[in-house]
Amino acid sequence: MSSTRDIDALIDLMARLPGLGPRSARRAVLHLIRKRGLLLAPLARQMQLVADTARECLNCGNVGTADICDICSSEKRATGELCVVEDVADLWAMERSGVFRGRYHVLGGTLSALDAVGPEELRIPKLLDRVHAEGITEVILALNATVDGQTTTHYIADQLEGRVRITSLAQGVPIGGELDYLDDGTISAALRARKEL
Amino acid sequence: MSSTRDIDALIDLMARLPGLGPRSARRAVLHLIRKRGLLLAPLARQMQLVADTARECLNCGNVGTADICDICSSEKRATGELCVVEDVADLWAMERSGVFRGRYHVLGGTLSALDAVGPEELRIPKLLDRVHAEGITEVILALNATVDGQTTTHYIADQLEGRVRITSLAQGVPIGGELDYLDDGTISAALRARKEL
Ligand SMILES: [Zn+2]
Ligand SMILES: [Zn+2]
Repeated sequence: MSSTRDIDALIDLMARLPGLGPRSARRAVLHLIRKRGLLLAPLARQMQLVADTARECLNCGNVGTADICDICSSEKRATGELCVVEDVADLWAMERSGVFRGRYHVLGGTLSALDAVGPEELRIPKLLDRVHAEGITEVILALNATVDGQTTTHYIADQLEGRVRITSLAQGVPIGGELDYLDDGTISAALRARKEL
Repeated sequence: MSSTRDIDALIDLMARLPGLGPRSARRAVLHLIRKRGLLLAPLARQMQLVADTARECLNCGNVGTADICDICSSEKRATGELCVVEDVADLWAMERSGVFRGRYHVLGGTLSALDAVGPEELRIPKLLDRVHAEGITEVILALNATVDGQTTTHYIADQLEGRVRITSLAQGVPIGGELDYLDDGTISAALRARKEL
């Protein structure tokens, strides 16, 4: 069926998105074809635009469309507070809570003996550099409350000990919970009640 | 945050896909940005291609990239059997089962008093035309085993009574079940065991 080959190829690509299997990819593609003027064509253009322009911030690891992201570029965000998160989804979750006014540092994961992820695989050396270079007075370790997240928190706290105030999110983050799943109020409460390590 | 506006716009478009909410749309977009060379750019191109070429078959309602789809164009599929389904996802499910060699007719829904869907809103007049024009000897009514699906089955059976053999899928379709959720083997069994109405 040659004329459906292009549609099958689109379904195969869609099925590679997280959370979509073959069946939901087929449903999504049929929906897109039905709304090809209102949704499929705009989505194609927006994807191409993002594919052409998106990049990771060379300083913090956030995604944006410039080499240095808006948060790192903004003098208003130079509060001396640096919030360390595992990935960009967590940074976005923090931003949605609207309570943090400093800058971020995205590690890109956690230390993991099992997966052979050491400090060099993450952005930990860059973090240590930034604490000096940007005159950071407080590092807020906002990693997930998982075993690997907490291992990473303690590793970074050891590295920075005596050089800067080190805090971590306290109240409201459930054991085993991931930041990106929490509501904004919970994140706000956890940030306000942060405690010294 | 001007440089993330394009990314936010992409998230908003993705969240309009069935099965994706705001959170899974954010996850999907982050995944796409990480794989912008291998997945995002090819997906954008394939979406644009399908947006430019996809259309509904003027004869049967299937989707493809020509005015008349491959199945309607193929003489091999002119077996005299016509399988009536609610939507294109059901046609695809039938094709995956690989057991049916005739042609299809996609109604585009079911009759529904509640939603004011009458025969003219579906492709029922076109179905009656095709039974004559294509020398159909058997109409297989493969609608979902829902109340509206069965109402539609009986309405079409009444319209065609005495003019053609009329059958429906029999074994294996669970009460309240929808074709697109069934495994291929169940669909095959139901087609083989189809019964006279
Ligand atoms: Zn940055
Ligand atoms: Zn057709």
